[in-house]
Formats: sequence, structure tokens, C-alpha cells
Amino acid sequence: MLIDPRVASGLRDLTPKLAKPREQLMDRLREIFHKFGFQSIQTPHIERKEVLTGKGAGSEEVLRQIFDVTNTGGTPGELALRFDHTVPLARFVTAHLNEIGLPFKRYAIGSVFRGERPAKGRFREFTQCDFDIVGTESLLADAEIVLLMYSALRFADVPEFCIWLNHRGILEGLLAKANASDRGPAVLRALDKLAKIGPEKVLMELTSEEKGAGLSHEQAELIVSFVLAGRGGPDVLDEAEKLLGEIPQAHEAIQSLKSLIRHLLEAGYAPEYLGVDMGLARGLDYYTGVVLETTVKGWEKFGSIGSGGRYDNLTGLFSQKKIPGVGASIGLDRLVALLEESAQLEKNMQPEGVLVGYFPGVASEIPFGIASQLRQADIVAEVYPDPIAIGKQMAYGSSRGYEFGLILGPDELASRIFHLRHLRDRKEIRDLPLDSLVDSVKRHCQADASGVLTGSKPDSVPGSASSQESGKANS
Amino acid sequence: MLIDPRVASGLRDLTPKLAKPREQLMDRLREIFHKFGFQSIQTPHIERKEVLTGKGAGSEEVLRQIFDVTNTGGTPGELALRFDHTVPLARFVTAHLNEIGLPFKRYAIGSVFRGERPAKGRFREFTQCDFDIVGTESLLADAEIVLLMYSALRFADVPEFCIWLNHRGILEGLLAKANASDRGPAVLRALDKLAKIGPEKVLMELTSEEKGAGLSHEQAELIVSFVLAGRGGPDVLDEAEKLLGEIPQAHEAIQSLKSLIRHLLEAGYAPEYLGVDMGLARGLDYYTGVVLETTVKGWEKFGSIGSGGRYDNLTGLFSQKKIPGVGASIGLDRLVALLEESAQLEKNMQPEGVLVGYFPGVASEIPFGIASQLRQADIVAEVYPDPIAIGKQMAYGSSRGYEFGLILGPDELASRIFHLRHLRDRKEIRDLPLDSLVDSVKRHCQADASGVLTGSKPDSVPGSASSQESGKANS
Repeated sequence: MLIDPRVASGLRDLTPKLAKPREQLMDRLREIFHKFGFQSIQTPHIERKEVLTGKGAGSEEVLRQIFDVTNTGGTPGELALRFDHTVPLARFVTAHLNEIGLPFKRYAIGSVFRGERPAKGRFREFTQCDFDIVGTESLLADAEIVLLMYSALRFADVPEFCIWLNHRGILEGLLAKANASDRGPAVLRALDKLAKIGPEKVLMELTSEEKGAGLSHEQAELIVSFVLAGRGGPDVLDEAEKLLGEIPQAHEAIQSLKSLIRHLLEAGYAPEYLGVDMGLARGLDYYTGVVLETTVKGWEKFGSIGSGGRYDNLTGLFSQKKIPGVGASIGLDRLVALLEESAQLEKNMQPEGVLVGYFPGVASEIPFGIASQLRQADIVAEVYPDPIAIGKQMAYGSSRGYEFGLILGPDELASRIFHLRHLRDRKEIRDLPLDSLVDSVKRHCQADASGVLTGSKPDSVPGSASSQESGKANS
Repeated sequence: MLIDPRVASGLRDLTPKLAKPREQLMDRLREIFHKFGFQSIQTPHIERKEVLTGKGAGSEEVLRQIFDVTNTGGTPGELALRFDHTVPLARFVTAHLNEIGLPFKRYAIGSVFRGERPAKGRFREFTQCDFDIVGTESLLADAEIVLLMYSALRFADVPEFCIWLNHRGILEGLLAKANASDRGPAVLRALDKLAKIGPEKVLMELTSEEKGAGLSHEQAELIVSFVLAGRGGPDVLDEAEKLLGEIPQAHEAIQSLKSLIRHLLEAGYAPEYLGVDMGLARGLDYYTGVVLETTVKGWEKFGSIGSGGRYDNLTGLFSQKKIPGVGASIGLDRLVALLEESAQLEKNMQPEGVLVGYFPGVASEIPFGIASQLRQADIVAEVYPDPIAIGKQMAYGSSRGYEFGLILGPDELASRIFHLRHLRDRKEIRDLPLDSLVDSVKRHCQADASGVLTGSKPDSVPGSASSQESGKANS
């Protein structure tokens, strides 16, 4: 009896076509996290279920989606798979506080699991990249999180994106101004739908007694018009100051966002990638200061590809000690899907390396040794395992993404001359000396990497931010 | 009520001290896999349980250790966590054969789960790095797997290791020679214990009627003495040929190993890292040709850190089609533990980058902007989030592994001169011009990376094999 080789519902395999760009993207993110002084930590995929379901650890919806884990001899209901990196971070910080010290900057990249109803593009295992600065209330930490989000997305070649900022203090000031502080949650729930259902319906919801916030029309008007006018460049903060400046909490929040933005600009953040959105709430029960989310022009359907904010009590589930922090998360699967659709991935996936083919009659040690020499010279190389028809060997090389084919036959060995074949267009670079093979190949691979032959761009590894600023504008 | 922040039994958190070297090692492995033309694939952590428990998928012991997974609304017993990468590979190859094509070279790095009894150094979640060439019977593929194992371990700076080779045909020839072909499994079980219990007890087990193979003393003698003499350099193959050469199967296996070794040497494999061990069996029910395992001198207690072999039917559980292949697996946790104990990790963890500290009174945009400039110049950099006592800022930098501290006070800003402090020994490089800060810092970081100041070695990125051959011998 044969077993059906399909994956479980809502899960997926990644073939090299999808796995490779993901790996590259993760490499880039790790590199930039490292550059910013964030350290890697790893927590297990399996947590004690109590840790995951503690009060406030996740929304009810998320808790319904938890995967339980049991092994032979284990107690059912004791273990579960993590559904995010935040709850494990809180547990981790509490457990290892003495070793790690504060402030502590960590990143975590890995799978999280949610038993959502399977749907196109929605998977039950997906990858989140989180970065947090824990144990400081400094505005510099807020600014660093935003700068890192920006730098990571620039570095990953995400096209025209915008990071939208808001501050809880502004929303609270607005509620105070409208005499609606006691209706906070209902108001914010309604505002969260603004982009989706439009201002008319939000107004209706704000004024509805039964299902909504039960505000007067005047109150609702004030709030909606403020929020509508409060989405744009940093200058909307000046308008906000005029309206809310007399409320200390709002004034402070506005000054804080202004200072944050000054820090970003000083660090080379290109202003066209930055926005202020005074309607942005993002789970205000958790966040207590700055909040951020990221949209990509033309790809708004993907929702935010990176979001986060400041919180004042990370570890409340596990400890009396209040530990504040600020952090954000990038949804890797969404980001990969976006880069794929915008053909950005392809741009980064230039052919490289050499497929070494050989004819029957050539001792296989020779191509095997040559491939090894090429690798030692830092060139990706592979020998086809059998001397089948040379066209088939080259077709294999082309399908595997090799840039060049190198063919070794008795003639090449006798004349000590070889040719290098561009697998894409079959053009040949002819009559290269076999005795300086590695040098010749290296020269041609490099020529190609620098764009001389194919116009492809070299794989640049800029530090962050403004080194990539040329020729990309969001407006 | 506070929740206990401990991890579940048999699992562990990795703090940066452990996570960082692991990440670096995985980066190196990915780099070398890529260099050899292996492609990344990813399969879900969760598989349909039927896939994992199919006949022959795992040993009974492994099956007992499976973690079941269930979500709300799911059917218990339907899903489970993978316990290795081999069964998922077999499923993957069957499911995606048309897309991937053969031969197919893939690597997979990721967590696997086994509910083993928790013990020191044994975890229920651990990381395996697998690499396989599927869909070819070519000896070049066998040679490539061994060369890749060698290159990966050299590249990872594993000290004096040895890859031991054997071939199923030799063991079968030996059984034939001893007229013990019908006792194969019992004989191999006994031989597997040779290193542990010694030849006397193996002889007893081979001759025991009840618990052993029930061989005559003569038969047992022949087998044990052959195996004892059959561990050493490649020349033991010549001795084997003398004894078993008349048995076609053994003759072929010996010739095949000899040819494999010729390929390795041609590719720059340093012979002192290579051994032949004719007692090596490694689960012969699965492997059908070459088998390999890896020991490290002085670290034999860790067991094999990398092993594998050739198989003739990867996908038998899922398909009528027989797909042969050859592959191996590196146990990352064992490898990290070994590198840690041998202080090899520390060697690779030189301090790097700059902690930017600043005094109160300095506008925080200035250090924030400087850190960003340094990153853009490819230097790891961080600003301490608050202008606390400068000594504390520097102590933080030192604890985070920064090489240099850079202090910005009103004096530095007024005189346009700054100092760079070596955080390890507190020596200062004095009187650098603030207006070419990035250049100065870069120059000193580079000087250091090239060993001028601290004698540390630069982070070399050799292609593979022989570029690292100097000064390391296994004998």
C-alpha cells in the first residue's frame, strides 16, 4: 500500500524556486539585524501550553488556533506550538534576565503555527521575523526600531513602501478632546475599519448606541475629520498640535513623534518612505506609545508587511517586574509573495556559477577535480554525475540556474583549450587556456557580475539606509 | 497569578551566547552547500502522521518518540512533528518530481523532534543538516557527498576529524566468505558493538546460539579479525582485495571505494582526514552502497557528527518508482557542542563593531546619526539608548562583544577630535579627526580584522577543500 505524498492541509512544501529567495531574504535580514547590534536568540517551537494561553498572551481567535502537542507518555493539553515570537520573548526575558542584562536587543526568525482555516496564500505554518529592544524607555530605541524596519526593507529591495507612525498619546488626546475617553475601545475598533468601509460607515458606527460607541454626531465628526486629516507627511503633526496641543498627553506624544522623526532624518532615512497616520491603532491594549505599520504602494491588499510599537509591560504574565520595550515584526511570507509579484526576486536571482560537463572517455576525476578547484576560487560549481549527451548536461545546468557551461572532451584535453558557454543565450567564449582554467573562469564570472556582459547588477551589500537611496522615490 | 517562565521538559532556549555561533555555523554550511550546487528546500515541521509512520519510515524506537499534533476541530492522530529530514525528503521528491527533475541535489537545515527521555545534552528538539543527491547511481555523486562533508567540516573549523568509509558489498562479501550470509543482521548487530564492548565479547556474541549469530568459532574469528584489520587508511582496501577479491560483489565494492577515493584526492581532499572501516555498518537495512561516518579525535564520546550513505530506493513508501540516491546528515547540536568544548567557537567570535556612547548635553541625534553612518560603511554599530555614566555605556558595549567604544562629549564636538577605545584592554587610539570619523573607524576596524592589532585572523571564506589545508593534520 503506497502512502499519499501530499502535505497536511494548510501546509506547504517550498521547492528551490521558492525556498532560495526566502533564504536569501532571511540572510539579508540577519545581516542587517546584526549590523544594528541585535542578537539572535532561539526558543523552542514547542512551549508549555500554559505559557501560550496565559491571560493576554494572545487574542481569543489566536488561542482557538493553537496546535496542541503530545508525545507517548505525555499529558495531553500540556504542550503546544508557538503562535508568535512575542510570548516566547516575554518568557525568555523573564527566565534569562540575569544572563542577558538590559537593555537587550534581540531578533528571532522562525516558524509560528496557527490552525487558521486554510485559504489561498494563508498557511498554518508561517515565518515571522521579530526584533525588539527590551528594558529601555528611550526614544532612541523607538527610533532605532523604525530605522531598522526601514533599512531592512530597503536592503531587501522592497519597492516604494511607507512606514506609518502614530502614538497612543495622540489617540488618547483625541478621545479626551471629544469627551469620549470612556468609549476608547469602541471608537478605536470603528476607526480601524476606516480604510475598509469608508468614513460614512465609520460615522454611523461611532454614533450607533447598540453596536457602536454611542457618540453624538458632533463627537463623531470631530474624531473622523481629525483622523482623515491626520494621514500624510510629518507636517500633519503641526496640525495635530494646533488642535490637541493643550492636552498634555497629546502634546507630549506629538513632540515625541517629532523628535523620533528628527532622529530618523539625521540617520539618513529618506522622508518619502515615512508617513504619519493618526488613525493607526494596532491593538492598543498591548501597545502604549509609538505604533507603526508598513504598506507598499500598489500592494495594499497584502496589508501591513511590518508592524510594531512600544509596550510598557512585556513580562507581566511571568513577573511582577515591569519591563518596557519597543519592537516590530516582519511577515516573511507576505514579503516574499510581494517581492515575487513585483519581480524583485527575479532581479536578485541572476544565474551564477559553472556546470562542468564531460564526454565519455574523459576520466571523471578530471571534471570532478576542476569543479573542486572552481569552488576553492569561490565559484559555485557542479559536475554532471554522468557523461550523458552533452546537450542534456547543459540543459540541466541551465535549469539549475548556472550561468556558464564548461565542456571537457578528449579534444579539449589534447589541445589544452576550452570554451565557456553562456547557458542563457548559448554564446561561447572560445579558446581559453585549460592550464589557467580557474583564472579564466573567474575573470568571466566577475566580468558578468559587474554587468559587463549581461547588464545585471552586482550583488551589492550596503550597510543600511541611505546607501541605497538613488533613484527610488515613493511619491 | 504569575506563570512559571520555564521551557517544557527536554527543550531549551538558546541565549545569544549559544545562538550566535549556531547561526554562524549554519551560514557557513549554507554557503558551502550552495557552492556545491545544492539547493534549499523546506518542508513543514508538521507532517501527516501516516507519512511518518509508514512501514520502514523510522525505527520502532523513533516511532514511539513521535510528537502528535492536533488543533481545535482537527482529528487526533492525524498530524505529527517530523523526526528527521529523510522521510519528508522522500515525500517531497515523490510529490514534486516533475517540477524538480532528476538528478536533484537538495539540502535541508531545520528542527526535528523526538520525545526522548530528557537527559543532559539530549534535547527533544534538535537541528539536522541534511544533503542528498537523488536520482543517480553515479559514483561521482557518492564522491561529492563525501567531499561536501569534508569541505563543510573543514570550513566550519572542526579540528582533526576523520570520515570513515565502508561499502555494503564488502560486508556482504565478508559474510559470504565466512559462509554466514544467512546470519547477516545478527552479525552486523554484533559488529556494531565492537568499539564499545571489544573483540572478546563480540566473538562471544557471534558464537552464541541463543542471543547471537550462532556461528562457529572459526567463522567468528575470520569475521572479527578481518574487521579489526580493516580499519585504517585506504591501503586496507588492498588487504581486503586479497581476502575477498574472488567474491564478485566484494571485488566490485572495493574497486568502487578505490575509485571514490581517487576522486576525492583529485579534488584536494587531504588524505589524513580519510579512513576506511570495514566494520562500519550504519543501518544496513536502509543503505545499499557506500556508508560513511565521522569522528573527531579526542571527541569520540560525541559519536559520529556526520554520517550517511547510498540507498537504492528513497521513495518506496510513496511510489512504485525506484529512486536511488546518496546523502548524509550533520548533527548541528553535536557539532556546536564539540566546537564549543574545543574552543573553536571562541576563536570565531572575535569582538567587532563600535558602541557609540555619548554624554548628557550632546543632542542624541548626533550619536544616532553616526551609528547609522558606520553601518552604511559596513561596520556593526549601536548607540547606547541613554546618556548614563560613560563607564556603564562602555561596559555594556564590552558585554555585547563590541570591539571599540566611541565617546561623544561636548569636548569632542568642540575640538572635532575623538578617541577610539579598545573595549577589551581599554587602550585608546587618540586624536582622530571627527570630520572623517567613518574613514578612521573603518581603517582601525580593518587593521584589527587583518590581525595587526590583536593577532586575530580575518574571517576567511574559502571555497572548499584544499584552500584550508595548511597546518592541520589528523595524524
